[in-house]
Amino acid sequence: MTERRAILLASRPQGEPTADNFRLETATLPDPGKGEILVRTIWLSLDPYMRGRMDDAKSYADPVELGDVMGGQGVGQVLASRHDGFAEGDIVVGMTGWADHAILRGDEARKLDPSRAPVQTALSVLGMTGLTAWAGLTEILHAKKGQTLAIGAATGAVGTVAAQLAKARGLTVIGIAGGEEKCRYATDELGMDACIDHHAHDDGKAMAKAIGDAAPQGIDLYFENVGGKTLAGIVPNMNRDGRIAICGMVAWYSGKNLDHAMPLPAVWRAILVNRLTVQGFLVSDHMHRMDDFVAELAPMVKDGRLKHREDVTEGLENAPQAFLAMLGGGNFGKTLVRVGPDGDA
Amino acid sequence: MTERRAILLASRPQGEPTADNFRLETATLPDPGKGEILVRTIWLSLDPYMRGRMDDAKSYADPVELGDVMGGQGVGQVLASRHDGFAEGDIVVGMTGWADHAILRGDEARKLDPSRAPVQTALSVLGMTGLTAWAGLTEILHAKKGQTLAIGAATGAVGTVAAQLAKARGLTVIGIAGGEEKCRYATDELGMDACIDHHAHDDGKAMAKAIGDAAPQGIDLYFENVGGKTLAGIVPNMNRDGRIAICGMVAWYSGKNLDHAMPLPAVWRAILVNRLTVQGFLVSDHMHRMDDFVAELAPMVKDGRLKHREDVTEGLENAPQAFLAMLGGGNFGKTLVRVGPDGDA
Repeated sequence: MTERRAILLASRPQGEPTADNFRLETATLPDPGKGEILVRTIWLSLDPYMRGRMDDAKSYADPVELGDVMGGQGVGQVLASRHDGFAEGDIVVGMTGWADHAILRGDEARKLDPSRAPVQTALSVLGMTGLTAWAGLTEILHAKKGQTLAIGAATGAVGTVAAQLAKARGLTVIGIAGGEEKCRYATDELGMDACIDHHAHDDGKAMAKAIGDAAPQGIDLYFENVGGKTLAGIVPNMNRDGRIAICGMVAWYSGKNLDHAMPLPAVWRAILVNRLTVQGFLVSDHMHRMDDFVAELAPMVKDGRLKHREDVTEGLENAPQAFLAMLGGGNFGKTLVRVGPDGDA
Repeated sequence: MTERRAILLASRPQGEPTADNFRLETATLPDPGKGEILVRTIWLSLDPYMRGRMDDAKSYADPVELGDVMGGQGVGQVLASRHDGFAEGDIVVGMTGWADHAILRGDEARKLDPSRAPVQTALSVLGMTGLTAWAGLTEILHAKKGQTLAIGAATGAVGTVAAQLAKARGLTVIGIAGGEEKCRYATDELGMDACIDHHAHDDGKAMAKAIGDAAPQGIDLYFENVGGKTLAGIVPNMNRDGRIAICGMVAWYSGKNLDHAMPLPAVWRAILVNRLTVQGFLVSDHMHRMDDFVAELAPMVKDGRLKHREDVTEGLENAPQAFLAMLGGGNFGKTLVRVGPDGDA
């Protein structure tokens, strides 16, 4: 019997979520059943997709039920195991939820090798976010040397990896990010060829001019994470036979910025005239590539070729405010919550 | 020296075009130069894409200049040839424009075999419109047996061929057309599994319900010719991993029906959640498949397996009104103008 603290969904958001939508609860976990493991959470990942699950609407995943623990991926240490693949002390990644302890099915957890890279990278560059960037670039955009790639939320968790992978593959990379500091990081640290600060441009038309100035050769590929005025600025700059991979649209979550949307007929016309391909994708459809992806990226993470940044909040109880800040663009790098101390070696 | 009658672009439309935008002119053609042929037009094709070229805006083709002959494809007979590939009396298809005579470069004309199928089918089922349907279905939608295909403007020139090809390949076909008569033709003559009359449904929501009722299994593939409320009705019915081929959007030409557009964020979300692929295409990118396509389709046209319908207007001088009627959906089948008598055998 283990005491467990967790953040629950207390109410559904009306528009933008607030701290009131969450509630901290202490409860008692049963012992793990056959095939299960008991995990103590060390790191929790916070991601924009979680916003969608707070609504009671059909999405790519079921909504979180009211009164249930907020879902999410974490890294933790096995405290007790009734699954042959795991021993006490192992470090694993799995769906712990926003909780300091969790019972996981062994076949839904993945064992980590702490010597390969810092374990929390399994939640970012070597986990779902890194795989998202890799799959978007490789499987959806078919990125090729010499092409020009634009990336929305370019200093976000996914954008950071996508940009560096694209540079390593010989593409020209135009980032779009919010604020001068993020843009400096994009060009000076991550090696992007240019970065457009969307705070400095009021609408899609101004964004289109800034993007056109930064990429007079036009945009071949767009890694879409944002929607809003960024998308409105990208579409008129797309080259013939260009591709757009829709990975997210954070500007439009919670019903915000709808006035910054281009009219659908104009977008449809651009797709037709320039023979664009627009494709949505979810990382969950690409999980079978995880091993290949990690084998390729882990050495780049370990030797520093692939830079990444973590935005760490201490304490499970502070997860809601870290999540709300992230939705507003207040994070800088992969948003993580430090839930407990490192594992014993 | 040949006297030539032609329809010119007299002025650019403000919104919907009117008869005043056109002017009939008689002029004198020079003799064909080296490598050229003089053609007497028999049939002229009228197509929705011509509306776009009346505007002074960047499109997939240059606009028609004011005072120039309206562009367009025709079938005609060679009156004089200075090109080795053509002899007097040959029947050819090429860009005659809206004119009763034209000088064509030989390398831009294609010789027809009148024994294979009626020559005017080179302007419809065995020409650009047929190739459009074939390329959309084959190259863009990757249509497969067992899938459900929806087609906008299902009884139009392209839709007619797409529907019959899809049925021959074992797909379920849901047509959308304007009016009971067209819908009866779609199901009773062309063999579509269902047809939705968009005149009977006021908006995208009503269309969505009608489409959902007709295809409770959902829509895998959508051949987009219309935009407007039809598109708004299709999007909520798209299945996971579905594909949309954007071939045209006649409902939105001339700035009409913009209020029937879904908001872009809702469309973007549907693309993401259902992993849709939306791709624009132009038949001009698929011309290299013309011979393969004709070899496959010509026998089906000749023996009647592929039904098609022509909407013929007599006389070049009536081309503008036939064109305006077609834009408003008043045509029924491929819009052709009979410009002159059949060729001498």
